[in-house]
Amino acid sequence: MLAVHLENGEVSLRQVPVPRRPEGYALLRTLVAGICNTDLELQRGYYGFQGTPGHEFVAEVVESDTPALRGRRVVGEINLPCTRCPWCGKGLGRHCPSRTVLGIVNQPGAFSELFVLPDRNLHVLADDLPNQRAVFAEPLAAACEILDQVDIPRHEPVAVLGDGKLGLLIAMLLAAYGYPVRQFGRHAEKLRIAEGEGVAVDLIDGPLPTAAFGWVVDATGSPEGLRTAIALVRPRGTVILKSTVHGTVAVDTAPAIVQEITLVGSRCGRLEAALPLLEHGIIPVESMIAARYRLDQAPEAFAHAARRGTLKVLLEG
Amino acid sequence: MLAVHLENGEVSLRQVPVPRRPEGYALLRTLVAGICNTDLELQRGYYGFQGTPGHEFVAEVVESDTPALRGRRVVGEINLPCTRCPWCGKGLGRHCPSRTVLGIVNQPGAFSELFVLPDRNLHVLADDLPNQRAVFAEPLAAACEILDQVDIPRHEPVAVLGDGKLGLLIAMLLAAYGYPVRQFGRHAEKLRIAEGEGVAVDLIDGPLPTAAFGWVVDATGSPEGLRTAIALVRPRGTVILKSTVHGTVAVDTAPAIVQEITLVGSRCGRLEAALPLLEHGIIPVESMIAARYRLDQAPEAFAHAARRGTLKVLLEG
Repeated sequence: MLAVHLENGEVSLRQVPVPRRPEGYALLRTLVAGICNTDLELQRGYYGFQGTPGHEFVAEVVESDTPALRGRRVVGEINLPCTRCPWCGKGLGRHCPSRTVLGIVNQPGAFSELFVLPDRNLHVLADDLPNQRAVFAEPLAAACEILDQVDIPRHEPVAVLGDGKLGLLIAMLLAAYGYPVRQFGRHAEKLRIAEGEGVAVDLIDGPLPTAAFGWVVDATGSPEGLRTAIALVRPRGTVILKSTVHGTVAVDTAPAIVQEITLVGSRCGRLEAALPLLEHGIIPVESMIAARYRLDQAPEAFAHAARRGTLKVLLEG
Repeated sequence: MLAVHLENGEVSLRQVPVPRRPEGYALLRTLVAGICNTDLELQRGYYGFQGTPGHEFVAEVVESDTPALRGRRVVGEINLPCTRCPWCGKGLGRHCPSRTVLGIVNQPGAFSELFVLPDRNLHVLADDLPNQRAVFAEPLAAACEILDQVDIPRHEPVAVLGDGKLGLLIAMLLAAYGYPVRQFGRHAEKLRIAEGEGVAVDLIDGPLPTAAFGWVVDATGSPEGLRTAIALVRPRGTVILKSTVHGTVAVDTAPAIVQEITLVGSRCGRLEAALPLLEHGIIPVESMIAARYRLDQAPEAFAHAARRGTLKVLLEG
């Protein structure tokens, strides 16, 4: 079967054996998969990765010991926890220290004709939820994670820094939940997507206001994001960190301490929180699709996704 | 009258006029004052400070329009808020953007024979609370601030990094509240003070454990403290930042995000929280007194306080 292979910054296509299906696992056929910034970072050598990436997917269950899954379209939780440690016991397998992660850590990913995941990781999709919308379940869950972690009072204004894919999903999600959202970005055409969903948008062309918001989300993906967020948040306010920046960031911690700011690291979230929003069409994720490629065009698709300012690039099986 | 003067790193003594007492203010005579790390930082040029420092004090009210205050021994809230802004309206005058701060920002401090503070900032001391204990009200309030900001579940182990004055107060406070506390420090003689109050102490002589505590307080006062704290805390855990480090700190934010750690900046606190602990002798703060000097010995007292490893140095009026 065909699989995408990443090694030393190169994206190639390989013919590899169909994966063995361990007990409790399903064999899955990729229908649609999304290229995420993390995939581009894996290409750049983050995590010392080499192998098959891909963790945003919609797939069809080809084989499973669970009859109710066979033949169904599914999305899946990407963390494969040990199921036995205290984290797993608390339902926080996403933090299991022995976990593998689909397409990221020791588990071949979905940019492949076929791949495997445990049955328990899978969520069957409603029949009327299109593949091209469902493929946003994983990144939308990462946006939903914010509201799982922090309790933002109703009607409190929230600032979102950054207008990339995750920034847009976060801004549209918070607006859908009724929060007054103001999004700061550098791309008029991207901000228009959020603006259409009731987000007040600001094309950055100078210094941002200071101490202006009680709640700030940094989704810039840049080291400056954290510094900007600390300046933008009010004393006793909360900054949610959604930008995984590699390497160290020079931060002046004194303002965060003197103003008693809370910084909350936030990563991926529960698919259960994202799927209803997609089923009911609450977040118009399809407007974020920049291009669609066949799996055998993966090198071109990666090159396209890496171009500055590109939104979601999909691979179709 | 005699006042300590800081300028260009020099501590000197000056004869200055008795301060004018504005309406609503009390004229105070310093009985005992404590030299804080912040005072040493003011000496090094932090905040571009020049003038009379001193914000940890016990004083006698010499003049006031409030009869109940006259002649009484008091401690005082060091922030002088505008009283009219939204922060002041919420009872968070300590974050008022127009505030002055006793001995720190635009308000001559307590290292002086006489000084002024608004009546509303003052707390009258119980007759049987000795000056040398009451002078710890301000730093102990800074320790208490942690429990005002975060809700640590009963019986949850807490790690405290650092065994300086604030680290000791924090460790002893948390132990007094029944938390199992483990304090990591580099000074056996200081750790013994906390050990006597039921704190489990660890003299650092190698790498610390990783992902070992759900709650970690960084009171090291050093840039390494934040990095150590992030390594020591568990996924989804909370780090309380008590170290005001000047200049930027190089932080790898990725682990904080991937492990969804919460970082909470924490500064000074409410005297109301600290005074009952001192009145009832719950925290044996007197064991932290390293030396006592007369106000006219302030240059020697500052030099002593600046020696590595020195605990609390007091100035007596």
